[in-house]
Amino acid sequence: MKAIGPIPAGYKAIDGELAIGGVTASALARQAGDTPLFVYSTDHLRQRVADLRAAMPQRLAIHYAMKGNPFPPLLTLMNGLVDGFDVASGGELELALAAGVDASRISFAGPGKRDRELERAISLGVTLNCESEGEVERAIAIGVKLGSTPQLAVRVNPSFDLKGSGMKMGGGAKQFGVDAERVPALVKRIVAAGAQWRGFHIYAGSQALCADAIIAMQAQTLALVEQLTSAIGEPPRHVNLGGGFGIPYFPGDEPLDIGAVGAALGEAFDALPAVLTDTHFCIELGRYLVGEAGVYLTRIVDRKISHGEIFLVTDGGLHHQLAASGNFGTVIRRNYPVTIANKFDVAPQEVVSIVGCLCTPLDKLSDQAHLPRADVGDLVAIFCAGAYGASASPANFLGQGPAREMLV
Amino acid sequence: MKAIGPIPAGYKAIDGELAIGGVTASALARQAGDTPLFVYSTDHLRQRVADLRAAMPQRLAIHYAMKGNPFPPLLTLMNGLVDGFDVASGGELELALAAGVDASRISFAGPGKRDRELERAISLGVTLNCESEGEVERAIAIGVKLGSTPQLAVRVNPSFDLKGSGMKMGGGAKQFGVDAERVPALVKRIVAAGAQWRGFHIYAGSQALCADAIIAMQAQTLALVEQLTSAIGEPPRHVNLGGGFGIPYFPGDEPLDIGAVGAALGEAFDALPAVLTDTHFCIELGRYLVGEAGVYLTRIVDRKISHGEIFLVTDGGLHHQLAASGNFGTVIRRNYPVTIANKFDVAPQEVVSIVGCLCTPLDKLSDQAHLPRADVGDLVAIFCAGAYGASASPANFLGQGPAREMLV
Repeated sequence: MKAIGPIPAGYKAIDGELAIGGVTASALARQAGDTPLFVYSTDHLRQRVADLRAAMPQRLAIHYAMKGNPFPPLLTLMNGLVDGFDVASGGELELALAAGVDASRISFAGPGKRDRELERAISLGVTLNCESEGEVERAIAIGVKLGSTPQLAVRVNPSFDLKGSGMKMGGGAKQFGVDAERVPALVKRIVAAGAQWRGFHIYAGSQALCADAIIAMQAQTLALVEQLTSAIGEPPRHVNLGGGFGIPYFPGDEPLDIGAVGAALGEAFDALPAVLTDTHFCIELGRYLVGEAGVYLTRIVDRKISHGEIFLVTDGGLHHQLAASGNFGTVIRRNYPVTIANKFDVAPQEVVSIVGCLCTPLDKLSDQAHLPRADVGDLVAIFCAGAYGASASPANFLGQGPAREMLV
Repeated sequence: MKAIGPIPAGYKAIDGELAIGGVTASALARQAGDTPLFVYSTDHLRQRVADLRAAMPQRLAIHYAMKGNPFPPLLTLMNGLVDGFDVASGGELELALAAGVDASRISFAGPGKRDRELERAISLGVTLNCESEGEVERAIAIGVKLGSTPQLAVRVNPSFDLKGSGMKMGGGAKQFGVDAERVPALVKRIVAAGAQWRGFHIYAGSQALCADAIIAMQAQTLALVEQLTSAIGEPPRHVNLGGGFGIPYFPGDEPLDIGAVGAALGEAFDALPAVLTDTHFCIELGRYLVGEAGVYLTRIVDRKISHGEIFLVTDGGLHHQLAASGNFGTVIRRNYPVTIANKFDVAPQEVVSIVGCLCTPLDKLSDQAHLPRADVGDLVAIFCAGAYGASASPANFLGQGPAREMLV
């Protein structure tokens, strides 16, 4: 038997079944017309943003990093909840615009922006988080060509990283941003070229659960902002402090203490020098806002025994849940939180492995989990499926095609 | 500096550029209209099948496991070259039919076949490689309902695996097939129910480069066929010996010695008992047939320095090349074979890391490789991109969308 990750707060049973947005899993599968299915909870999303706002200093704006989940109805909802959107490609930019996000509230980061993506962003007045001197020069030239003033922030490659982070985006040689010591010269170049200097984007890592690590990273980020401001001789209008707020996926993971993070950030804001009084600060969060709001439902197609072990074979798999299968940025495979959705209030009875329908041994959704007895037709729920699920998995692998998605 | 994998045989320079099918990389990119781009070589595919046929015993049929690459023009080509197709889903089945493959030459494996997939396959006369007793019962019931005789082979979960295999599909508890000791009873059930028993599918692993390991696996497979034949009292009409033939990806990898494999298999066929005289044998290969025939071309968008290291940022990335980025079924990231396509005959001059355009540190295509000097606009080629590239990667991740594909 292997442990499973903690089921996120806020999920309850109705008539013995897992319910999302007040609707049972089997009713949701019927409404969708088929499985597999991602279900995202409006209530959960609203609550998460409200809790976060309550914990953070009022001065801090909250941006949605839509790479976490670009499902159009969810984008429309998030547009009403957050202060800005961060996009990572021209494709995401179009999705954000289609969801009604105002271009002035969008920033665009990414180390490989093509000229046509820069042109589109500049013509719309989107803020570009520039990742290199070369990108700044391309943006300036495009601005001249289009007769539009580029809105250019500089993404800084900080010398520190986020301790305990799932993915480090700073500290040493990186493809992201400009090494901190070259930033002042680049800002001066932006200003001299007549572009609008929007400020800094400083992203040191993601998916951390330790409040102290995030507090330390934010303190280092603010110190770096002060230092850059001195070197430039002018304060930034905007500072994107990055993200890093993680969610619990695995056995033993504890939720991040956002109260502690918010209190420390409030004190840090109070201690900022006068020169930064008018600077706007934001954080950009993707996974933290949407990850726990999503559940992946997949139906059991076969129940089989091999060498004494029970396998539940589902109609889903890693083509929708690459990360849950342990094949995306993880070294050791561990179990995401999982349940038998239509037996949510039944006590565990047997140890089973839950696999997908793909013809590859990589396609394992849960390894030797202790669960209620389940048979063909029952529904498996994988939690923490709201971020980096549908869009971050190889949907066409083995001809399976994408899962359905619903916002309820 | 880190080593890169061996560039597959058969790729030459024309006018100093990597050429595929006699056309230079830059001309291919122009023809395609944009990068990134997968290019598959007809010549390479034909030569690979011809070489394989020359090495294998004449008695052995060669099937294409289309999970390796389902690009429609490539399927049409392969249909003219091989003896049968193996599909892994209803989606792949439709693609094979659309490419002109006759249903009688198709077999369908996969542990999570849905009823509607079984119905379609049975009504067409496709051979089902049944993965469990439960699936056999569903197929029998569907056959009765449709008034069609199901063509049922039994996938056997062998007690052995393929030594040195990249992915083990046998040996111990697995979601694939039926444990060998339960197979005779299941075959008798198929026959008793009036379905057509087609034989066995025995797949012990994939991506092995050691001829001795494959020879040993094939010998074990044939011994298992003999043993099952005795227990059943009737020989199988067809036996699918699985695959397992690997291709070199990484530094130090050597090509599989197919001459040795073919010679040993010929001797093994000669030594089979008389009861198996009329049995047809095939192997199913995906990666081995198509992997080295494909090249991924991506254009450099930025060249940047961070902490003294050079990064070439491209318009491609792990959204098309998940495996090359080291994020699909590998524990330690190693470099695929890579070159600067438009400087294919230039000697290496500098050490660079090649990254994709995605906003994640996972998106690394080549780590500290020794390559000719390259700048914005140059083309990077990643080799061994013919299998598990376009279809096995999260194409929509970060809003990037799929790469183009061409058969030349």
